[in-house]
Amino acid sequence: MIYDVAIIGTGPAGLSAAMNVKILGKSYVWFGSQNLSDKVSKAELISNYPGVGKITGKDLNEAFKRHKDELGLEIIEQMVNQIMPMGKTYAIMAGSEYFEAKSIILTTGIATIGTLPNETSLVGKGISYCATCDGEIYKDRTIAIICNAKRFEHEVKYLADLAKIVYYDPIYKDVTITHDNIERLNSRIVKIEEENSRVKGITLRSGESYQVDGIFCLRDGISLGTLLPQLELENNHIKVNRQMETSLKGIFAAGDCTGRPYQYTKAVGEGNIAAHSAVEYLSSLD
Amino acid sequence: MIYDVAIIGTGPAGLSAAMNVKILGKSYVWFGSQNLSDKVSKAELISNYPGVGKITGKDLNEAFKRHKDELGLEIIEQMVNQIMPMGKTYAIMAGSEYFEAKSIILTTGIATIGTLPNETSLVGKGISYCATCDGEIYKDRTIAIICNAKRFEHEVKYLADLAKIVYYDPIYKDVTITHDNIERLNSRIVKIEEENSRVKGITLRSGESYQVDGIFCLRDGISLGTLLPQLELENNHIKVNRQMETSLKGIFAAGDCTGRPYQYTKAVGEGNIAAHSAVEYLSSLD
Repeated sequence: MIYDVAIIGTGPAGLSAAMNVKILGKSYVWFGSQNLSDKVSKAELISNYPGVGKITGKDLNEAFKRHKDELGLEIIEQMVNQIMPMGKTYAIMAGSEYFEAKSIILTTGIATIGTLPNETSLVGKGISYCATCDGEIYKDRTIAIICNAKRFEHEVKYLADLAKIVYYDPIYKDVTITHDNIERLNSRIVKIEEENSRVKGITLRSGESYQVDGIFCLRDGISLGTLLPQLELENNHIKVNRQMETSLKGIFAAGDCTGRPYQYTKAVGEGNIAAHSAVEYLSSLD
Repeated sequence: MIYDVAIIGTGPAGLSAAMNVKILGKSYVWFGSQNLSDKVSKAELISNYPGVGKITGKDLNEAFKRHKDELGLEIIEQMVNQIMPMGKTYAIMAGSEYFEAKSIILTTGIATIGTLPNETSLVGKGISYCATCDGEIYKDRTIAIICNAKRFEHEVKYLADLAKIVYYDPIYKDVTITHDNIERLNSRIVKIEEENSRVKGITLRSGESYQVDGIFCLRDGISLGTLLPQLELENNHIKVNRQMETSLKGIFAAGDCTGRPYQYTKAVGEGNIAAHSAVEYLSSLD
């Protein structure tokens, strides 16, 4: 199936985009978390989202979830790893599955975690963002895993079951995963060693080095340069015009990923515009 | 007194702007109606304002009023007739009084042009300006559509997919839309028939009449930016950039007056951005 619109991200901008795409009668596929936005739900108090009064982030996120349910919006809980232009459509790789859509609305938020030097250029050459896609390649080999959210621990386990040795760099609290062959690092990975344009090892802040065959980066949010390298950026944000069109035909963006102010109200406004622009774009294809 | 910010208009964009200006600690003067927005309060049903669920316009406008009161925002109920640049500040003539402000946020909405007799009084009683807001109400029912620009044809199609019969009055050239249930009128709609203050039918210049349950008016609006003749317009709307800056230093705009889509969610998003931009502008004056 070729979807009319793929929406990537379930924060306020993604929600606003998804609801309008559905109301406008287009087919859609929406990637993100059933819990919508961790960031919203952790906000202490929001005073300036017009119409809801002073509200905690938790309550606002719950209100967003109720609204999503009321409209019957469905979410696929998969990380989108890559988007590839395919002529008139785009291929979207989410987890180990492929999806295809005529247009895309990016609501990926801001990447709070920086990528490592060299990381982007070594994707597919030892750097992977997808355990289920590339795990098999590292059967009985030595790997490193950088992980920034507890909810990816099952992917860590999946990789540890395959690999011989796993050097583990968890960037979150409450690490509970243990495994025969997981060696938890006591210093952060700061450098990727390479040889002939392939990953060869890691160096820690402590100065120690280890040889590895591959590195898995399991992070919330993915750097835009990795997701869709063709996309034009401006001050580290996705460059858009007033219609929320990016530099690529059929790709729209909304919310924090398009720049400041980082505000929920701005995000929903832009999501709304992006959805309307996407639908107008679709009608131009007919 | 010289105010930091003057906000003109009390629709969703104006409310969003005013609350942010106040929260950001700036002095303000806000012109409009204590009732906020007649247009919002007359909308039959709104499904796409994230977080509030499906809601009547009346209830959404009441929610806006409660939020305004919770933040202690004050409104001056005067029509602004003219704005004059005075070097580093602007003079605002409201009713017969003068005010002075360092910056201005225009949220003046759109004035619809070429309205039919009775049209304005029947808004929310069968007259709608928004296909995506009110379309669902007319599922399997009979409607008329007046449309003055080809680029709204996708909204016509959206309505035709929902409705049983569509009487179509296109006021533009190159009509290409066709649909099983669209009946193109060969004479212009000149009169709205009503019964008990609700739309009941249309009468054409030719004298023919049709019963309809609702009438959608899809028109390019005209901007009220004429209140400040120096302001640059674009397609009858106030020209703004992504920061909601107009062509005049210190003057910002948000909401329907800056262009389509005419959506409450877009309006509050732009009001938020305009307030942040105005506050940034003020700090550049210090």
